[in-house]
Amino acid sequence: MSEERTEISSLGEFGLIEFLTRNIEIQQASTVLGVGDDAAVIDHFGKQTVISTDMLVEGIHFDLAYTPLKHLGYKSVVVNLSDIYAMNATPTHITVSIAFSNRFSVEALNEFYDGVYAACEKYGVDLIGGDTSSSQKGFVISVTALGEVTPDQFVKRSTAQKGDLLCVSGDLGAAYLGLTLLEREKRIYQENPQLQPDLENQTYIIGRQLKPEARKDIVEYLEEQGVKPTAMMDISDGLSSETLHICKQSNLGCVLYEEKIPIEDQTKQQALKFGLDPTACALSGGEDYELLFTIKQEDYDKLVLSEQISVIGYMTDISEGAHIITKGGNKFKLVAQGWNAFEQ
Amino acid sequence: MSEERTEISSLGEFGLIEFLTRNIEIQQASTVLGVGDDAAVIDHFGKQTVISTDMLVEGIHFDLAYTPLKHLGYKSVVVNLSDIYAMNATPTHITVSIAFSNRFSVEALNEFYDGVYAACEKYGVDLIGGDTSSSQKGFVISVTALGEVTPDQFVKRSTAQKGDLLCVSGDLGAAYLGLTLLEREKRIYQENPQLQPDLENQTYIIGRQLKPEARKDIVEYLEEQGVKPTAMMDISDGLSSETLHICKQSNLGCVLYEEKIPIEDQTKQQALKFGLDPTACALSGGEDYELLFTIKQEDYDKLVLSEQISVIGYMTDISEGAHIITKGGNKFKLVAQGWNAFEQ
Repeated sequence: MSEERTEISSLGEFGLIEFLTRNIEIQQASTVLGVGDDAAVIDHFGKQTVISTDMLVEGIHFDLAYTPLKHLGYKSVVVNLSDIYAMNATPTHITVSIAFSNRFSVEALNEFYDGVYAACEKYGVDLIGGDTSSSQKGFVISVTALGEVTPDQFVKRSTAQKGDLLCVSGDLGAAYLGLTLLEREKRIYQENPQLQPDLENQTYIIGRQLKPEARKDIVEYLEEQGVKPTAMMDISDGLSSETLHICKQSNLGCVLYEEKIPIEDQTKQQALKFGLDPTACALSGGEDYELLFTIKQEDYDKLVLSEQISVIGYMTDISEGAHIITKGGNKFKLVAQGWNAFEQ
Repeated sequence: MSEERTEISSLGEFGLIEFLTRNIEIQQASTVLGVGDDAAVIDHFGKQTVISTDMLVEGIHFDLAYTPLKHLGYKSVVVNLSDIYAMNATPTHITVSIAFSNRFSVEALNEFYDGVYAACEKYGVDLIGGDTSSSQKGFVISVTALGEVTPDQFVKRSTAQKGDLLCVSGDLGAAYLGLTLLEREKRIYQENPQLQPDLENQTYIIGRQLKPEARKDIVEYLEEQGVKPTAMMDISDGLSSETLHICKQSNLGCVLYEEKIPIEDQTKQQALKFGLDPTACALSGGEDYELLFTIKQEDYDKLVLSEQISVIGYMTDISEGAHIITKGGNKFKLVAQGWNAFEQ
């Protein structure tokens, strides 16, 4: 964080908004009116609008002890864009609202917005509005993302069919291990501030936790290949929780193969160091923001060459339940053990 | 509040969402997909989409000591709809995200959502998504509202013209006095819990604070009369602050007449009881959610019969500044003293 500190009160609410939005560049032709009025205005050209919203709360979703504000701004946008891509849509606009206590300086908020704008630029979306507010305690972020999709080309969670192949993008479990590592280093630092954090060779799993990306490339690749998933969602709570959502909403069962679940070597190594099962991290870790989707069997050939897509199982009749077949050949019932804020 | 108490953890996040959204009725033909997937989907028919978002934070924007949760849910929606009407648009959809600590029960959240749904029903908008989250402390609400408008019929703050008449709907200052009264009763109660609150004959100002309405009727009336305001915004921070916004963004000055500012008798009486100047309450009180707008002089005849619209001044060249002429004939510079969360 920079060393300057400007009190928010020296700018006032409107001065703060002007400051934070001074570099906005409009990227979408459909943005008729952006920040600065009662509301923003978006034009449409025969498309459907897709909307998603997420709230991130300090102490629940992030810890500022090890989360740079710029990364936090970036991540706050990306997790919403991930939901839009998970609808097979293209994100176009976001609104960002924040509430913060007076321990935050203008410089701190500026760093947060630098991350917001970096995500906007990378994904080609326009920031068109928001709200800034005081809070009594803690930092709260609420982002709403809008996207567009050709009419009726959006993909729901509830439309998988029996026999469809279950696919996942990228690799799983890394974000959870990055979080576990950061939490450990925080504890060590709190106990002994002289010790430097031991994060060497851990850049992959830490990056996956602090600066996730949304799988725009996968949605584009599927379209290029002429494959429309039969169902899709993003993985924010862990593979088992999300797989069970698709099963429940599509009224189906499924079989998953442990050996097919994509896990990076660094993730596996770090899991073993912590005495954790890498597969359990992938099933229950969460925050991977990969895409989980089902395709018709006849589309398999069109995706087989992608190294970024793994077929991990298939959908069955609901009467067969949802199961995972382990590497040892055992069959277990799939249970949701994903992150659940209300059980912590 | 009801006497039952169901712990949120007994439902889990998804059970909670299912419970809170079990009675949603879709009112908008354009709602293709609502709650329950990664994102909602809205169809368009050659309209422009208008978007607004607001965050409400416990201890900053509301005090649960005297704010019933149902009213809070209602108000959270209405303040956003007010922004959409202030664009000369019709609200169609909202998303509602909340973060809350474990002192809230399912019954408490249900009361909040009862208010949300009551506002949705009254204004004909669909709740199509949102997020629920834990918080370490306090209740935080973020609402995003979407509306539609015939292409390029939206009204900005920046398009008033020199000579235009400055108009306001309804009456001003009541919500601020309602708040002042509720704060006083809270202090009295804290000092002596035996004393019953003395709120008799104060239903108007308390209602204006706890359950404001958005001026849908005014937007409809203007359209019926064939009057398109040249600029418009809603009054959330007080008349002077908002008037100065229109002046600044339209690059104009203005003259306001104190005697033309609409203030209800009950507001005046309560102001005098508190030793406050009623005009100061109207200028700086805030939370009235009335519409402030400018019209061409030739449209005056079309609005003169409405008891709900007051002409309070006119726009001047920027070189003349922004002033108010008092009942006594004195001229003062208009200054923004509206509610400013960052100076408290």
